[in-house]
Amino acid sequence: MSLADFFHPGSVAVVGASRQKGKVGYEIVASLQAGGFAGDIYPVNPHAEEVEGLRCYPSLEAIGRAPDLAVVVVPAGAVADVLRQCARVGTRQAIVISSGFKEAGEAGRRLEEQIARIARDAGIRMIGPNCLGIMSPADKLNASFGGPLPAAGAVGYFSQSGSLLAAIVDLARSTGLGFSRLISIGNKADVGELEVLKAFGQDARTRVIAGYLETISDGDAFIREAERIGHDKPILLMKAGETPAGARAASSHTGRLLDGGRRAYDVVFERAGIIRCQSIKAQFDYARAFASQPLPGGPGVVVICNTGGLGIMAADAAEREGLKLAELGEPTRSRLRELLPAAANVNNPVDVLGDALADRFEAALDAALGDEAVHAALVLLTPHAMTETDATARAVVGVARRRAEKPVLACFLGASRVEGAVAVLRAADVPVYDTPEAAIATLKALSDYARWRSRPKRVVKLFPVNRRKVEKVIARHLRQRQPEIGETEAKEVLDAYGFVTPRGMVATSGEQAAAFAEQIGYPVVLKIWSPDIVHKAEVGGVRAGLTSGQEVTDAFDLMMYRVPRKRPDAHILGVLVEEMCRKGREVILGMHRDASYGPLMMFGTGGVLVEVLRDVAFYLAPLTAGEAREMLASTRTWQMLQGAGGQEGVDIDAVAEALQRLSQLATEFPQIREMDINPFVVGPPGATPIAVDARITVAEEK
Amino acid sequence: MSLADFFHPGSVAVVGASRQKGKVGYEIVASLQAGGFAGDIYPVNPHAEEVEGLRCYPSLEAIGRAPDLAVVVVPAGAVADVLRQCARVGTRQAIVISSGFKEAGEAGRRLEEQIARIARDAGIRMIGPNCLGIMSPADKLNASFGGPLPAAGAVGYFSQSGSLLAAIVDLARSTGLGFSRLISIGNKADVGELEVLKAFGQDARTRVIAGYLETISDGDAFIREAERIGHDKPILLMKAGETPAGARAASSHTGRLLDGGRRAYDVVFERAGIIRCQSIKAQFDYARAFASQPLPGGPGVVVICNTGGLGIMAADAAEREGLKLAELGEPTRSRLRELLPAAANVNNPVDVLGDALADRFEAALDAALGDEAVHAALVLLTPHAMTETDATARAVVGVARRRAEKPVLACFLGASRVEGAVAVLRAADVPVYDTPEAAIATLKALSDYARWRSRPKRVVKLFPVNRRKVEKVIARHLRQRQPEIGETEAKEVLDAYGFVTPRGMVATSGEQAAAFAEQIGYPVVLKIWSPDIVHKAEVGGVRAGLTSGQEVTDAFDLMMYRVPRKRPDAHILGVLVEEMCRKGREVILGMHRDASYGPLMMFGTGGVLVEVLRDVAFYLAPLTAGEAREMLASTRTWQMLQGAGGQEGVDIDAVAEALQRLSQLATEFPQIREMDINPFVVGPPGATPIAVDARITVAEEK
Repeated sequence: MSLADFFHPGSVAVVGASRQKGKVGYEIVASLQAGGFAGDIYPVNPHAEEVEGLRCYPSLEAIGRAPDLAVVVVPAGAVADVLRQCARVGTRQAIVISSGFKEAGEAGRRLEEQIARIARDAGIRMIGPNCLGIMSPADKLNASFGGPLPAAGAVGYFSQSGSLLAAIVDLARSTGLGFSRLISIGNKADVGELEVLKAFGQDARTRVIAGYLETISDGDAFIREAERIGHDKPILLMKAGETPAGARAASSHTGRLLDGGRRAYDVVFERAGIIRCQSIKAQFDYARAFASQPLPGGPGVVVICNTGGLGIMAADAAEREGLKLAELGEPTRSRLRELLPAAANVNNPVDVLGDALADRFEAALDAALGDEAVHAALVLLTPHAMTETDATARAVVGVARRRAEKPVLACFLGASRVEGAVAVLRAADVPVYDTPEAAIATLKALSDYARWRSRPKRVVKLFPVNRRKVEKVIARHLRQRQPEIGETEAKEVLDAYGFVTPRGMVATSGEQAAAFAEQIGYPVVLKIWSPDIVHKAEVGGVRAGLTSGQEVTDAFDLMMYRVPRKRPDAHILGVLVEEMCRKGREVILGMHRDASYGPLMMFGTGGVLVEVLRDVAFYLAPLTAGEAREMLASTRTWQMLQGAGGQEGVDIDAVAEALQRLSQLATEFPQIREMDINPFVVGPPGATPIAVDARITVAEEK
Repeated sequence: MSLADFFHPGSVAVVGASRQKGKVGYEIVASLQAGGFAGDIYPVNPHAEEVEGLRCYPSLEAIGRAPDLAVVVVPAGAVADVLRQCARVGTRQAIVISSGFKEAGEAGRRLEEQIARIARDAGIRMIGPNCLGIMSPADKLNASFGGPLPAAGAVGYFSQSGSLLAAIVDLARSTGLGFSRLISIGNKADVGELEVLKAFGQDARTRVIAGYLETISDGDAFIREAERIGHDKPILLMKAGETPAGARAASSHTGRLLDGGRRAYDVVFERAGIIRCQSIKAQFDYARAFASQPLPGGPGVVVICNTGGLGIMAADAAEREGLKLAELGEPTRSRLRELLPAAANVNNPVDVLGDALADRFEAALDAALGDEAVHAALVLLTPHAMTETDATARAVVGVARRRAEKPVLACFLGASRVEGAVAVLRAADVPVYDTPEAAIATLKALSDYARWRSRPKRVVKLFPVNRRKVEKVIARHLRQRQPEIGETEAKEVLDAYGFVTPRGMVATSGEQAAAFAEQIGYPVVLKIWSPDIVHKAEVGGVRAGLTSGQEVTDAFDLMMYRVPRKRPDAHILGVLVEEMCRKGREVILGMHRDASYGPLMMFGTGGVLVEVLRDVAFYLAPLTAGEAREMLASTRTWQMLQGAGGQEGVDIDAVAEALQRLSQLATEFPQIREMDINPFVVGPPGATPIAVDARITVAEEK
């Protein structure tokens, strides 16, 4: 039994139907009737004879046949019994509208577990409880109390908030946005966002998926499905609450740089191609375009306007959003010169001037869309004295139809003066926006999605590594309940995955330290050696740039004197004498495992100052070579990494490979919760980067 | 004669009046009549007897008395004659609607100069040409073809685009925003934005000033007026085209970091307290709140909602905008616990739950506004089944009136379901927004403006300096037509303003260089010495960290061999042997003089890499001590400058003082176009910062 069956039942029972207007039990029956549902409707209520002209039954059994769908509006305590009735008569689909469950405290939570169990045991699929119901405009099915049906269309919507869904339906009716299905998923005791996503993925009526979520139950599976389904259908999500489970508490740089998890959703949504919407308005704006327009074949946008200043405002908005206006080719510009008056601007934004009639808009739009550098168009109209708003709208529709392979958006500024024109555009499926900025943001969303969809197939390279060695280190730490893997062992782990670490030896006396330094060669760095001290620099446990035996013994003795005073609890094993890395740039590689979504890889610049500079990039593991490079390229310091300002660049490929190796380590060992390689010193092309310091935290797999 | 007289003329002549509907000459007469203008209207047109029931005159003279205001709609070529008629009869105010002037090319530009001259000579104040006219709803004056009058209200609006103004009036009518005056300034041949700003500043009806500008004619004067008037009345500006005059071409780091001038408007607007609007929608959103609400007394915002998830979305938006939600005091929370059901959230955002009736909203809003940590409130409602939308609106209005000292904004989500409530709120001047995000952005604008208004009085410190020395250097460069002042002389200039520069001497042989190095003390740096080479590092003309005589002579010879091969044009005077600065952080101080607004001061981090890191702050000179500190504090590296990550901080006060000294230099010498001090090396508190390298560009004052 699939979720799809919910949308075209042959018959619906409303259990808890009421004759009293305003009661939910009445609204459901009235909505089913008003929506034009063609099947049988059976009100069920032992205290009524009829509801809205329909015979009312004392129980589900009394109907004498099994309704395909039961909409349940009885008090919370009576829901279990209704579901048992469903089981007995053979009704296998229920929408539980009733509230008083998990959202109402502990007793409600137990009640919810009980009804979920009953439904599961009886093979009943249940939407809710604590929901608004469902709508399917094309099937004339309105099994909800969310008001009249909106127009039928291509957008499938699911919402974790019933009242937001009601507001959305209300807004949609006023703006004409059409929906395939709407589902209020409520407390998600059985049917959740993952199943809805899959169902929308298979549903032929749904071409755009949109939703509002407060929690995501199985993040990993949701993202995997979204990535699969998103390839065919754009997914537009509003997500309230920015913090995924488990991302708040973090001791590593990497974890802290996720901003208490605030960035984690951006990271995982980006990977899955989910278009994140920051407001309902943005979601509507985007949905309208995705439902009606082709995807742009490239980044080039043309703006056609009859007020130069507003064209410039659109261009400014494009620049802020990171969209570039197309540079029109000379053939197009010379064609525009022929078509437009001499004072018109034939560069992008194209200004057809304030006295333009419909024909001038038409000619300019057509010519611009014929340019191969143009992949999308925005027509921007303000009503001047002679402007033919309606005729211009019809002209835009005509060109948009002829040039159907490229998206065309419009912004006709005003209210009553452009009302007719807006109606013409909407009826013809040309999306209209209330400001140039909203239209530009929508073009950005179209363009981002198109780029995501045409990304190369993800191929993750597997490097030959020494897994056994890592298994041993992790197993020992878990056995001894030491979640922190300190520098030496962390470097062993990295070594097993092909990282190069500096040469070093642990000395227990100043003389020994000096002898080791001679062996390694100056300059050397000294680091306090203790399983209990993770942030060595903060306790004075690091001295770099030592160039003689005298300096080494001095530094050794000073450290042995000072560190125990700052950290009397720490068990100090000695001092590591380590090769100083040849010069290079300090970067950080890291990983933080999100409880739901898995390993989030980080690349950042600035070494120890990474948390101050905050110039970091995150991506979900496992990484492809392209993704690793993109992480580098998305930092502010990308130019500097490539070489700029007279300074030499670094070996980009080597850093990208290191990120992939670390991603492999994170993927192969789910026990690793967090890792920081900091600093990771990278030299010029050809030089081997060095993992100078590292830490790893492990925990039993859940 | 002041601009204010335009708004209540006793009589208006429409020169070029027409009987033909759709013609501008008809629309003006009809608009004056429909608006309810109480004075006399004189249509003027030699080819008509009457227009819309009014007697039509063949000329202004034929009227027999001087109309107070002439609205001119004749063809461009005939405008001069009409203005001469005005002069003869004694009409001293004219609105020239006619187009065909500057916007139409060279001939039009000459025509515009001609009519401006005629008006000036005759003492006629002229609005336009190429404009839409003016409106003053409270005076029932509609001398425009921008459609029917909008509601009377507190917002004065001026626009450089007539058609945008028409769209704005149209939008305002549909949303009920009220205006005091609307002026289409057109080509600004006489009356421009500066005069309108002053007039709005004095106009008792206007409490909020809003406008749309494409160009600002006298930027410096405009900003000074805005800063003065803005103290009493908020100024909301949309500015199309981001590049002020002269900011595009820049050779200094400072100039280039203005992003081709893109940031200059932000800098000057911020200084003047102008609220910059990125879209018409944002401008409307802000105007509504500024016109009706008190300013918040602090940063604390409370959100009251009946859907938890949307409260969280508002909180997320607040965090993105840099607004913090208020932490409610325990007395408030315990009061809320009494008032609300147990399941409600008494922390901010306060969730009154989906079944809340009007009373619960009322009680929660009242309690929250009583908290001293709360300075503004946002009420967020989604219509649940039992929600009393209208009654809730009335309750919100009641509390807002009782707590009139704090701003209250609302967002009631939906369309038809909240229509009545929205009308109630609008009628009572509680601003309503279409999304939580729009309301939060508005609260941010209110809060920024309130903070700007309560900023301390600007006191600019004057340091004792040696102006004569600088005058000489600049005069010599101007006389010899050498705009670039190279390192040595730039350092002399800085020295005269109290900067410390490294010790150094110019050597002409390797032996001499080594001798100088001995004198200065190792390590030293060598720099090629040529008036023709500005970017020394790029031609291999800098060698740092030299620690022996041998290294110095080698570096000298190498430079003398290599640099002439790279720059055969350069006249090389020798090599500068300079003291190496003790360690410190490299920052950059700079100035770029904007052609309109004057000196924009810059502080940035990263030394030579400043253009890569782009971590810079700009502010308009002259700087106060507070502003100089704020510039430092607004960079990403602020924490690092103060000391973070185990590294020592720098002497913040010393850098702030250096910025003020540089600001004084820029203010006292308008001939200086650009300056970079880069790197400026700053040590820990107490250490003197050193201007290691510097360059200055001068030009004759305009």
